Amino acid sequence: MNNLLVLIQCKDSVGLVTNITRVLAQHQLNIIAMREFVDEVKQQFFTRIECSGIVENHNNLQQELLNNLPTEAGVRLIPEAEKSIALLVTKEFHCLADILVRDNFKTLGAKVKCVIGNHETLRDFAEKFEVPFFYVSHEDKGKADFENEITSLLSNYQLDYIVLAKFMRILSPDFIAQYSNQIINIHHSFLPAFIGANPYKQAFERGVKIIGATAHFVTNNLDEGPIISQQTIHVNHTFDAKQMAVAGREIEKAVLSKALEQILEDRVFVSGNKTIVFE
Amino acid sequence: MNNLLVLIQCKDSVGLVTNITRVLAQHQLNIIAMREFVDEVKQQFFTRIECSGIVENHNNLQQELLNNLPTEAGVRLIPEAEKSIALLVTKEFHCLADILVRDNFKTLGAKVKCVIGNHETLRDFAEKFEVPFFYVSHEDKGKADFENEITSLLSNYQLDYIVLAKFMRILSPDFIAQYSNQIINIHHSFLPAFIGANPYKQAFERGVKIIGATAHFVTNNLDEGPIISQQTIHVNHTFDAKQMAVAGREIEKAVLSKALEQILEDRVFVSGNKTIVFE
Amino acid sequence: MNNLLVLIQCKDSVGLVTNITRVLAQHQLNIIAMREFVDEVKQQFFTRIECSGIVENHNNLQQELLNNLPTEAGVRLIPEAEKSIALLVTKEFHCLADILVRDNFKTLGAKVKCVIGNHETLRDFAEKFEVPFFYVSHEDKGKADFENEITSLLSNYQLDYIVLAKFMRILSPDFIAQYSNQIINIHHSFLPAFIGANPYKQAFERGVKIIGATAHFVTNNLDEGPIISQQTIHVNHTFDAKQMAVAGREIEKAVLSKALEQILEDRVFVSGNKTIVFE
Amino acid sequence: MNNLLVLIQCKDSVGLVTNITRVLAQHQLNIIAMREFVDEVKQQFFTRIECSGIVENHNNLQQELLNNLPTEAGVRLIPEAEKSIALLVTKEFHCLADILVRDNFKTLGAKVKCVIGNHETLRDFAEKFEVPFFYVSHEDKGKADFENEITSLLSNYQLDYIVLAKFMRILSPDFIAQYSNQIINIHHSFLPAFIGANPYKQAFERGVKIIGATAHFVTNNLDEGPIISQQTIHVNHTFDAKQMAVAGREIEKAVLSKALEQILEDRVFVSGNKTIVFE
Repeated sequence: MNNLLVLIQCKDSVGLVTNITRVLAQHQLNIIAMREFVDEVKQQFFTRIECSGIVENHNNLQQELLNNLPTEAGVRLIPEAEKSIALLVTKEFHCLADILVRDNFKTLGAKVKCVIGNHETLRDFAEKFEVPFFYVSHEDKGKADFENEITSLLSNYQLDYIVLAKFMRILSPDFIAQYSNQIINIHHSFLPAFIGANPYKQAFERGVKIIGATAHFVTNNLDEGPIISQQTIHVNHTFDAKQMAVAGREIEKAVLSKALEQILEDRVFVSGNKTIVFE
Repeated sequence: MNNLLVLIQCKDSVGLVTNITRVLAQHQLNIIAMREFVDEVKQQFFTRIECSGIVENHNNLQQELLNNLPTEAGVRLIPEAEKSIALLVTKEFHCLADILVRDNFKTLGAKVKCVIGNHETLRDFAEKFEVPFFYVSHEDKGKADFENEITSLLSNYQLDYIVLAKFMRILSPDFIAQYSNQIINIHHSFLPAFIGANPYKQAFERGVKIIGATAHFVTNNLDEGPIISQQTIHVNHTFDAKQMAVAGREIEKAVLSKALEQILEDRVFVSGNKTIVFE
Repeated sequence: MNNLLVLIQCKDSVGLVTNITRVLAQHQLNIIAMREFVDEVKQQFFTRIECSGIVENHNNLQQELLNNLPTEAGVRLIPEAEKSIALLVTKEFHCLADILVRDNFKTLGAKVKCVIGNHETLRDFAEKFEVPFFYVSHEDKGKADFENEITSLLSNYQLDYIVLAKFMRILSPDFIAQYSNQIINIHHSFLPAFIGANPYKQAFERGVKIIGATAHFVTNNLDEGPIISQQTIHVNHTFDAKQMAVAGREIEKAVLSKALEQILEDRVFVSGNKTIVFE
Repeated sequence: MNNLLVLIQCKDSVGLVTNITRVLAQHQLNIIAMREFVDEVKQQFFTRIECSGIVENHNNLQQELLNNLPTEAGVRLIPEAEKSIALLVTKEFHCLADILVRDNFKTLGAKVKCVIGNHETLRDFAEKFEVPFFYVSHEDKGKADFENEITSLLSNYQLDYIVLAKFMRILSPDFIAQYSNQIINIHHSFLPAFIGANPYKQAFERGVKIIGATAHFVTNNLDEGPIISQQTIHVNHTFDAKQMAVAGREIEKAVLSKALEQILEDRVFVSGNKTIVFE
């Protein structure tokens, strides 16, 4: 008896919950937990249902659900299975370390298949955990070549998500298009404040009393993808830009870890430029 | 076309959601929002469903729901209607003021019918807001007489809840029994730390770095009723007990306000010594 | 035996603390609490010293301190005395109410001398507390006339600070210049995110998971004055712009209240576009 | 030109700051940052002064400071130097990992000299970081023997602090007496709530809406030593005891990390059962 996750996103209409739960009951699936949300502006319905039971034929169940939903509905049936991720890094260790430690002790909810760095800095650390580390320099080559090398490495794995764990290069729309809603970035500011480079320097110069971090899906527009999770901490006049960066690392790793947990448990829907997160 | 709230608490079993939503659909009720929770330890199911539609006969709907639920189910149908509350106070103003200001500007979600104080201190303030203030001294009389005077005053109103807004007398089990799950208290500590008198003094003497406040239902056991909401704030070595009390007031009023919002929107279930809060 | 506050801001140099404390000791002033900060970028020194003792001649003490400090030092001697403030409001009640309630119970640390509104909405509330309310419409007149009417009213009082407690008009540089570092605004976003109009609408459209509020001094550049205090709270996909605004009110009033406490206790230095806050 | 830290704790009296700063100035020490606090209840004065300058003879400076302070003053002169710590662990990895990762990247502010575990569970992890791991079983022997083995291992190092990073054995007063104010523990609750065993189980059973973690010095009385740092997070009815423990790990490691930072920067004074922390 396994668990099955049913994720549905469709146009809102009367009787959706009844229809969906009836189909699940007919398949002898018991609802363990159910969350739903209606976006009244966009007239969109979202639900995440944890079921227990045995489903002989996933295609049949999916088709039957689609038959009982408005047209253009999205239905995903997700069996319990370990997910796979790859990490892209530059020089900073804190997010990488947090993820590899969880992976090492099997509390991440996914397996890290490889780490790709545009510097060699973090190779030793990754290799302590027996995770393959690939160095892809961005120097002396065009962005397309740089990204092709990365794509080529990633293509060796069946990956669910690619995590930019303080990866300090801007990816091209072409690269991003290959992994729609699969790339997660941690940005070192409370977006949309301090978009772009050196957010801690910007924060210091503005004299803010709070700094933040934001985990978001990567889309074509830099730092403008759907936000998954955010956190903030208090700072004061005694913090210079470097001290803000040090303090910020703690929430960067916490917020990325939180976002990954939510994504790896399939709690996150993307809807336009926003997310619905069933915590 | 009005909204109707359906609250159900019963033994967990297979097909509950299907059964419930089918009955609602048969009554032409459209589900706007639905939350459910299964307490797997106690095998209890809880759901809160916001519907829109016209129900001709509430009794029929309630009976039909009961027919489709396990025995001993609790079903409440709550139409949109203003609730009424009474406040019990002593001398401290901050919680009273917060509630009366919201009432004055119609953002409380209830009407304050009266304020009863065991001191005259807050009469002027209540009367600024044209809310009847009754002074019931606890002096020179037994607790039973004191409480009978209060009960007698409260009985003049149709009350949904009684809020102890920094009321500094301990109520007897007899009094509490008359208002089961209807009395809400704000306790000036992060329960269960610092149960009883002078929690800020206790906190100061223990040298804690965080203080808290707790809103809870009042039961026979002092400070041990089901917790609805809690908040904490950081303090440090520069705070003496009085300064902790001053800082604490801000979270006392915030946490009581939050708990009231949740209760007045019927988001809170009591289950044994705990609450389920569908935020 | 009264308390005296000594605030000094000057170029940093060796021996400052020794020189200052020696002068205070020579005047038989005992240091109760002392805070100092050196801005190493700007090479500026800031100190706030609480003393107890009797000072016969403030001018003498001030001159002696200046004699022992670098040129162009700022020295302020502030005896214990109640401060006076005026409030500018539009239609929203929550910040106004929070301040008037504290004033009513003498926990504000200042006296509210008057409330000026560009709508009549809050007259009744202010008058409950016997605080004069003046209605100054912004309609059918130029901004200069509008502001002159306000200035004329304010000039009837000896004011330490002017608080924009959700005042929804933009003040001109001429107006602001009259009250340098004396005007405090509460902005309903986590600055510098969502500068300008409708920040909650902007926040909703961006899909943020945290909203904030910022108390700051008002300077010529809209929403860009020195930040005094900020707070944030979590929101999620179930919040529309209006619900964000409702949730935001709680932190708006909390953060304005915190900023006022710090200002009224003379804990805030302005240094360029930033503040030093000795909490 | 090195930095020197001057920590003084003594009976409060008039002119202390003047006397101290004069002595420092006479030794050509420039004050970079200074914090002071007076405990008015205990009439105790505490100061932490960061100086720059060259001190030829520490003993002379210390003696001169003592000559200018009340009797029984405590004066510590702390030159910049790396500190050494040892970790005691049982089976849980999160605090150990957080500390070893920081140590690995030289951001801990100390060197971890060894890890001692009463289980073998964490050996592999410690050894990844080339930190010696010693297994000392608590089974089949008395507590005195168990602790003597630990003491014997610790005596091989010059240690500043011993960190109980989720060490699940209770240490005897004899052991603790050897390391007065040198043993730091992370307790998995918001002390003084849920003292003793299974705090998350206790928290679950009480139905709290917030859980916490506490870093404190270890004294004879279990969980009653001076508190250094605390943090809390929100939980709700969907958390069982195990999920609370999972969520709690994040703040356990954060709060222990914060406490260690403050201790290793010599920002913490112990005064009776409390701490003064100059953040």
